[in-house]
Amino acid sequence: MNGIGAHEVIIETPDHTKQMQDFDLPHLEKVIQTYQIRSLDLKKDPRLKYSMIFKNYGREAGASLYHSHTQLISTPVTPKRVKEELKGTQWYYEYKERCIFCDIIEDEISRGERVVAMNSDFITLVPYASRFPFELWLLPMRHSPDFDSISDGERQSLAQILGLVLKKLIKGLSNPSYNFIFHTAPNRFPHPGYWQTIDKDYHWHIEIMPRLTRPGGFEWGTGFYINPTPPEEAAQFLRDLTV
Amino acid sequence: MNGIGAHEVIIETPDHTKQMQDFDLPHLEKVIQTYQIRSLDLKKDPRLKYSMIFKNYGREAGASLYHSHTQLISTPVTPKRVKEELKGTQWYYEYKERCIFCDIIEDEISRGERVVAMNSDFITLVPYASRFPFELWLLPMRHSPDFDSISDGERQSLAQILGLVLKKLIKGLSNPSYNFIFHTAPNRFPHPGYWQTIDKDYHWHIEIMPRLTRPGGFEWGTGFYINPTPPEEAAQFLRDLTV
Ligand SMILES: [Zn+2]
Ligand SMILES: [Zn+2]
Repeated sequence: MNGIGAHEVIIETPDHTKQMQDFDLPHLEKVIQTYQIRSLDLKKDPRLKYSMIFKNYGREAGASLYHSHTQLISTPVTPKRVKEELKGTQWYYEYKERCIFCDIIEDEISRGERVVAMNSDFITLVPYASRFPFELWLLPMRHSPDFDSISDGERQSLAQILGLVLKKLIKGLSNPSYNFIFHTAPNRFPHPGYWQTIDKDYHWHIEIMPRLTRPGGFEWGTGFYINPTPPEEAAQFLRDLTV
Repeated sequence: MNGIGAHEVIIETPDHTKQMQDFDLPHLEKVIQTYQIRSLDLKKDPRLKYSMIFKNYGREAGASLYHSHTQLISTPVTPKRVKEELKGTQWYYEYKERCIFCDIIEDEISRGERVVAMNSDFITLVPYASRFPFELWLLPMRHSPDFDSISDGERQSLAQILGLVLKKLIKGLSNPSYNFIFHTAPNRFPHPGYWQTIDKDYHWHIEIMPRLTRPGGFEWGTGFYINPTPPEEAAQFLRDLTV
């Protein structure tokens, strides 16, 4: 490992007063396309092992600037938390011979109670055993480890559902601070044995976390999270909310 | 695992206006003795695998009550983060045949630049590669995995150094929110192979984290922390501060 890396700030609009939830569909699609273009471009540099796309919205989410923006940070190592997730999905795949996220999607659609929204290519749900109140996952229906593999049609569907979900969050929870984080596979290189099974066992997705409570000593010390809002109630509230 | 556990709130004083940094030495010693008594008592219940003592001070640290208090939560499993630390120290011990914390203490005393305070039984330092600005570790000189094994003399020394360090933090950083977390070994039971090496490889300590910055998407997503304050500068500032 060396000190190499990239940090890009994607300025989403020239309008200082507009936030992501205010963008129209073609605008939001262009923002997502920018993420995709930058992600694909950074993959050309073999020194970069991982690119993380994330947004800090509001002071409680760590934002220091008001103007609507997203960040992309590329690191020369696969981050600790990403590795943990990859190991977890790999373990599940070895055990069941199925992708855990594909299984979750199928199960959540059949239950329905934790689903917030769906379109032809994506589903948004409040995950079982959510860590935070109103935590949301946004998953593609098509199994793929890489966010930047989305097609033109999927990009349009993603803009539709992301815009809808952000409008619901902002209206329903009175403009909360939130983070979103793209969970996507690390850059793969032809090393033998290096994450060989990712194409089968990993499924990219977006996690959206409103910052309604502050983590305390218990959360920091244990890695366990206390969530006072049942995911089924959070899902129903957001599902039923008109925006 | 079942739904068993304990959550105790230790009210440190009848005086609503006093905080831990205001207590005199005998008072703080009694508070620490209460932690010790409760920890030892909860070990009698074999269903409880871990007891975590922690403090949330100020809103940014997750505190919802002003009145000075500490919390103790016992869980029926060893928490995820605790296991990670135990695995790390075990790995170091297998490699070096020495306790990593004993090694850190020896190294930091000889360097001196990250030491904030010392007495006969304890040392406080700003750890190498601190995650947060002004993060502090408070370690016993005597190797022991269990906080609740401290002697009467050690309890007195701990009250002295903890009081001093809190006074420095509160004065030097203008009454910041902070968390402290006791890092101590899990309750051990006579299971073969269950944390057999803890007595040798683990060393209890306290981590104090002022909440001066808010974690954003990058920290949440990666588990990596961006700290703008070099530990040597933080240590010098606190070391030189008179309280
Ligand atoms: Zn899948
Ligand atoms: Zn030691």
